[in-house]
Amino acid sequence: MQDLVLDRPIVQKYGGTSVGTLERIQNVAKRVAEQYRQGQRQIALVVSAMSGETNRLVELVSGINPHSSLRNYDMAVSAGEQVAVALMAAALEKEGLPSLGLLAYQLGIFTDSLHSKARIREIDCQRLYQCWADGIVPVVAGFQGVTENLEITTLGRGGSDTSAVALAVALNAAVCEINTDVDGFYTADPRVVPDARLVEEMDFEVALEMASLGSKVLHTRCVELGAKFHMPIIVRNTFTPNDHQRTIIMNLSTQRKLEAPVVSGVTLDRNVVRLSVTQLPARGGMIAAVFDTIAASGVNVDIIVHNKQENSDSMRIGFTIGSADLVRTRALLESWCRDQGGNISCEAAEGLAKVSVVGLGMQSHPGVASRVFSVLENEGVAIHMISTSEIKISCVVAERDGDKAARILHRAFIEEEVR
Amino acid sequence: MQDLVLDRPIVQKYGGTSVGTLERIQNVAKRVAEQYRQGQRQIALVVSAMSGETNRLVELVSGINPHSSLRNYDMAVSAGEQVAVALMAAALEKEGLPSLGLLAYQLGIFTDSLHSKARIREIDCQRLYQCWADGIVPVVAGFQGVTENLEITTLGRGGSDTSAVALAVALNAAVCEINTDVDGFYTADPRVVPDARLVEEMDFEVALEMASLGSKVLHTRCVELGAKFHMPIIVRNTFTPNDHQRTIIMNLSTQRKLEAPVVSGVTLDRNVVRLSVTQLPARGGMIAAVFDTIAASGVNVDIIVHNKQENSDSMRIGFTIGSADLVRTRALLESWCRDQGGNISCEAAEGLAKVSVVGLGMQSHPGVASRVFSVLENEGVAIHMISTSEIKISCVVAERDGDKAARILHRAFIEEEVR
Repeated sequence: MQDLVLDRPIVQKYGGTSVGTLERIQNVAKRVAEQYRQGQRQIALVVSAMSGETNRLVELVSGINPHSSLRNYDMAVSAGEQVAVALMAAALEKEGLPSLGLLAYQLGIFTDSLHSKARIREIDCQRLYQCWADGIVPVVAGFQGVTENLEITTLGRGGSDTSAVALAVALNAAVCEINTDVDGFYTADPRVVPDARLVEEMDFEVALEMASLGSKVLHTRCVELGAKFHMPIIVRNTFTPNDHQRTIIMNLSTQRKLEAPVVSGVTLDRNVVRLSVTQLPARGGMIAAVFDTIAASGVNVDIIVHNKQENSDSMRIGFTIGSADLVRTRALLESWCRDQGGNISCEAAEGLAKVSVVGLGMQSHPGVASRVFSVLENEGVAIHMISTSEIKISCVVAERDGDKAARILHRAFIEEEVR
Repeated sequence: MQDLVLDRPIVQKYGGTSVGTLERIQNVAKRVAEQYRQGQRQIALVVSAMSGETNRLVELVSGINPHSSLRNYDMAVSAGEQVAVALMAAALEKEGLPSLGLLAYQLGIFTDSLHSKARIREIDCQRLYQCWADGIVPVVAGFQGVTENLEITTLGRGGSDTSAVALAVALNAAVCEINTDVDGFYTADPRVVPDARLVEEMDFEVALEMASLGSKVLHTRCVELGAKFHMPIIVRNTFTPNDHQRTIIMNLSTQRKLEAPVVSGVTLDRNVVRLSVTQLPARGGMIAAVFDTIAASGVNVDIIVHNKQENSDSMRIGFTIGSADLVRTRALLESWCRDQGGNISCEAAEGLAKVSVVGLGMQSHPGVASRVFSVLENEGVAIHMISTSEIKISCVVAERDGDKAARILHRAFIEEEVR
């Protein structure tokens, strides 16, 4: 990116660690000034709060009132981005670049009114075009939105990634660059699998699975947005000077998709809990009723496994949720079971993890699933649940087997493929 | 105030120390809830940033760029009030009071665009009326304003007092209560004069002189606003439960003005510097030229002493400024002197303090000035400059004599008056 001047806007997002100290903010400003002097005039920056700041604000609100309305929560936690925007604009000024900080209500990042997890409806880019016409580099607050009534909203933790991609889409930008503290997407978490490799190019579909399967690199909604609007996303490390070490997420051509490796990555999601509802009467509407009950509480259900036994008049349905949601969800379900009467009951299994292999190549390579199961079972890893899609195979295993399962699968599908 | 339910709105401002910890915020919320339950339904709170927070933000901006544009400065430093508003609203919710936090742009506190020292032009109170109609207690951010273009402004350090009084005026409130960490206005700074007493009632004129003469209790502009619109201001201590220990600032009736003590208070302002311009040609326009030069730099000149010698063709003019402005002002003046040519020159005297006696009674009691000078000189305090108005007499003395001068004057005019 550094040496290539684009005639379309580019959006650069800098995460919390990238703006974590005054020195780091100044380093970002120096990089932007360098690009500007090389002729890249239409740059919009999106910044997160300085690292640790959002947590500090969340603790303040929870400390005063754990049941605070989400409207007050949003007002408190969005303050961190306001400070970071002002500091970044001041740092750009120091580098000789006129700069303008813009908060959500000033630019016009309009969202719905679902406080703490709002979705962007529209972004008004007029002030950005005006900035560029006036030779000004705009700095936009990530994470924040505003409703039509000027209420502050936030997009959920990690939402600045989404802010950046949505802004890039609204601007019809050439690319959205996500500057963070890792080099990009790895074939597995390098802390778990020492031989994990950086993936240089990744199709949106794969990135989406990787993000939603527990890779912490990008916010899932940001990848969804990029995929939907074909906005290329570059993930790069603020702290490494090597510009070839990064992941570009884009639509790979059919040819490149065919040549893609069978498995692009292995992900591991800890803190998985399985709930099962047993003795559910095998009549229409019962399954929907179970999940309606859970959906009403706002809990995200991940894997759902259901395999009806023909000619039985009762069913057993299983699903996974994050362990943080267990207490609430179990209480809801148990109450629902009691209301139904009969023998319906609910049981929970804790201490699980989900390991997944993801890759476009799986679509055209039969036998991947059976190989996944065999390499796990051969090494003594018991499989508790299975869920598959066209481009991923997930197995729920005991949490204590999680790291081992990820290493086994990485060795079988990625390291051995290369040789 | 506690037991008296008013049928007009009241504005309560809580300063940085009053909201300095989560526990203190909760204590404020408990007090408000108590008043609400007693029937006081139209309460608007105005809050400052938690103590230390604004300093932290100022240091961040100065750390990144000491010459940051004031627009960026305002965006950064106003974030502290946003957090405090959200926390106070959450604390009220915890007490069972529905509450709505309102930032400057959400309520509509419109100012001019003089960043970092903006002046309020208009406040739109519609959302407050709507809150009260809906049984909601509004919490408004102090210190912040917004321009017509939705740029964030701030009102200067201590500006939350001004926010509160301006809001009270806009609402035609019964009273504006300033909750702070002192009991009110004292006859002198108790740290300097141990026998200083709390003043229970004070006329606006006296409060204005006290505020501008170095008493740190209230922001001068807040008192100006109160005086202009006859808005009673109650200064009280958040941390003392005694509701009779406070200062009410109001228009005292003519009768009470006549009965007012000769001197209401003694103030001491340290860090005073005197500049003198000598050999100034005694022709029209020269004095204005001197002060135009200083005004252009934004420095506030305090006392000006000029006493033209008849039949002389040159003048000597003296004035005081705060010591923080010395370097800049002297450089400007010396440059101006050189440009004028001739023998015009400028000299500075540092290490001075200003001690003042203030009181409505002085208007009707002749001889106060001469007594001020005699008590000081009898105790060996040399007077460097004198400035008088209808209700105050200020003497510039050596800074090392400042505390002693304040104690002498307090004893002569306040302690001895009482006996």
